Amino acid sequence: MAPNDRDAAEESLDHLRAEIDRIDRALVELLAERRRVVGRVAEHKRRQGLPVYHPAREEDLISRRRDQARAAGLDPDLVEDVFRRIVRASRVVQAKGFRAPGVRQGARVLVVGGRGAMGTRVVGWFSAAGYPTEVLERDEWARAAQKARGADLAVLAVPIRATAEVAARLAPHLPEGCVMCDLASLKVDPVRAMLEAHPGPVLGLHPMFGPTTQSLDKQVVVATPARFPERSEWVLEQLSAWGAVVVRSTPEEHDEIMGVVQALRHFATFVFGRFLSRAGVDLDRTLEVSSPIYRLELGMVGRLFAQDPELYADIMLATPERRRLLRRFLDEAADTARFLNEDGREELIREFRRVAEWFGPFGDQAIRESSYLIEKLVERF
Amino acid sequence: MAPNDRDAAEESLDHLRAEIDRIDRALVELLAERRRVVGRVAEHKRRQGLPVYHPAREEDLISRRRDQARAAGLDPDLVEDVFRRIVRASRVVQAKGFRAPGVRQGARVLVVGGRGAMGTRVVGWFSAAGYPTEVLERDEWARAAQKARGADLAVLAVPIRATAEVAARLAPHLPEGCVMCDLASLKVDPVRAMLEAHPGPVLGLHPMFGPTTQSLDKQVVVATPARFPERSEWVLEQLSAWGAVVVRSTPEEHDEIMGVVQALRHFATFVFGRFLSRAGVDLDRTLEVSSPIYRLELGMVGRLFAQDPELYADIMLATPERRRLLRRFLDEAADTARFLNEDGREELIREFRRVAEWFGPFGDQAIRESSYLIEKLVERF
Repeated sequence: MAPNDRDAAEESLDHLRAEIDRIDRALVELLAERRRVVGRVAEHKRRQGLPVYHPAREEDLISRRRDQARAAGLDPDLVEDVFRRIVRASRVVQAKGFRAPGVRQGARVLVVGGRGAMGTRVVGWFSAAGYPTEVLERDEWARAAQKARGADLAVLAVPIRATAEVAARLAPHLPEGCVMCDLASLKVDPVRAMLEAHPGPVLGLHPMFGPTTQSLDKQVVVATPARFPERSEWVLEQLSAWGAVVVRSTPEEHDEIMGVVQALRHFATFVFGRFLSRAGVDLDRTLEVSSPIYRLELGMVGRLFAQDPELYADIMLATPERRRLLRRFLDEAADTARFLNEDGREELIREFRRVAEWFGPFGDQAIRESSYLIEKLVERF
Repeated sequence: MAPNDRDAAEESLDHLRAEIDRIDRALVELLAERRRVVGRVAEHKRRQGLPVYHPAREEDLISRRRDQARAAGLDPDLVEDVFRRIVRASRVVQAKGFRAPGVRQGARVLVVGGRGAMGTRVVGWFSAAGYPTEVLERDEWARAAQKARGADLAVLAVPIRATAEVAARLAPHLPEGCVMCDLASLKVDPVRAMLEAHPGPVLGLHPMFGPTTQSLDKQVVVATPARFPERSEWVLEQLSAWGAVVVRSTPEEHDEIMGVVQALRHFATFVFGRFLSRAGVDLDRTLEVSSPIYRLELGMVGRLFAQDPELYADIMLATPERRRLLRRFLDEAADTARFLNEDGREELIREFRRVAEWFGPFGDQAIRESSYLIEKLVERF
């Protein structure tokens, strides 16, 4: 190619890129305009007491944009992805707009440990919704009576080991009608301790997310109402109004399921990560030759070890039942050694098929979900 | 609220929603316009032989849109997410535009097993790039000489167990200068078999993705060039031109790392999934009370079992070294039982910290990546 041709070509590519930049600027301007209209919608919904999340409207909006995309020769999946992201942002904007009123206006909230990581979140939710909210910290027991006066809800945002002691110490200061509620990741013992300490309504809550989670939107909270459930119902309604998914359970069922969902999962990950570190694996080289899915799986392992060892030891070793479950896991793992023998292949395949059957339709769903995420991962990192 | 007030309110909400719909239509129109300009860029790049992926231009584009978002009071993360998605789509459009010329125009490609799942992909890539491409299937050996005539690249897209036999059977028909290449997930044995069968250039390839992956964009391919590497270089260049990340290795290093990346990982997942199915876990209830991160992790397990048991048994049990590695994993897992004793907590915490140190900065990165994905998961499902 002659130098002049190259110049002409570069000029023209520059021209096309300038076109793209113009379009991109216009896109951001439209997003900003949309944001302003959504702000007015939020204002409106707040005044009328309408809910933020309107699933039918969202699905309708997205399906019409998909149709438009198809007609314009655009990939409808691209347009759907873009609008899901935009719609989510608009939900967050609207939820932020929902500062008042809470579902039980004027209720007084006391958060014990309200300056800890999770406590700070709880204080943020309730005070943003207009509830008069007090904080009681470890060194403030002298002011407990004053802070607890007239409380309608007392949230114990304290380490699980401290729950019983804090419940006992706080209870004498609470009005009898006050709901006492904890946030610990076990429910049998903490709920029992609260029932013993406080004669009024008792509610166990387990938020299935950490304090770094920004929005309650679609996050799961397991609730185990224990005494006078009708009097703690407004707390659950309030969580739902903030976008959380409230799943009701009993303390016993909760603790059993969490043995698997938390203890066993973390322990299996711990065992795997520990082996990697001991097997002399070259982590960097491994990541280099890894497909996105392995990167993601290894990321799940790395994620565990980036967190607080004490907290995770507590979760794994919480109760004798949990330790028994983990021991059984190790026993059954040892049992798979026979699949590694020369003649183990057929049995491994049979066992693989049996487990696949147990997973049922979840397997295909998992493929769909994880394929979607891998695409996101490739896109971003 | 009086009925009339409600009517007025509804009317006004309808009006705001109509505003949003107008903006959304305009957004899709702009996306369609952008798509057309990107098509012209692709055309242009193709004529000039310029690469599709221009990382600096992409990062610059996104950082300018972030700045614009900030100035307009919009969340820059929202704008970045939207543009990452758009830019990826535009890369795919450009890559599709790259039908010709391949980096070595006119080279003749023969794909053995070219109607299998992976073979079909390979045929698709090469023929779309304008390479004359032939397929040789199991029942077509009578026509092997004719199909192999003048071939510059012979790709063995056959099950790993068949590689040696197919290489031996094909070799006599190939020109001596033809590159023989396989796609198996092990490299030592297949590469040795190809070296023995064919006196010309030999190249081991291991695409780190399955046949369902749509685009080569950012996908990893491990390459182990074995004989006359300079003569198979164009194949690797071609893969890079299609957007793949080519990582060079030796057959020995490859097989060792894959022992961990594939065999160990799948086996650990197998052991975990098997235990869930045997422990009487209620899968549906478990999913109901699960945080998005557990759903994601459980999805990784379900994903394994939704795939072909024979293929995964082959990967796990491929070589005596692999079986030894998996046995060692089980032994070290059994060893963690002592952390479950009454006095095991301190040692578990020490061990947790030691592994965290081994993971080093990858842990924080994993938190960032997985938090991003959880957000995507919450958004979509």
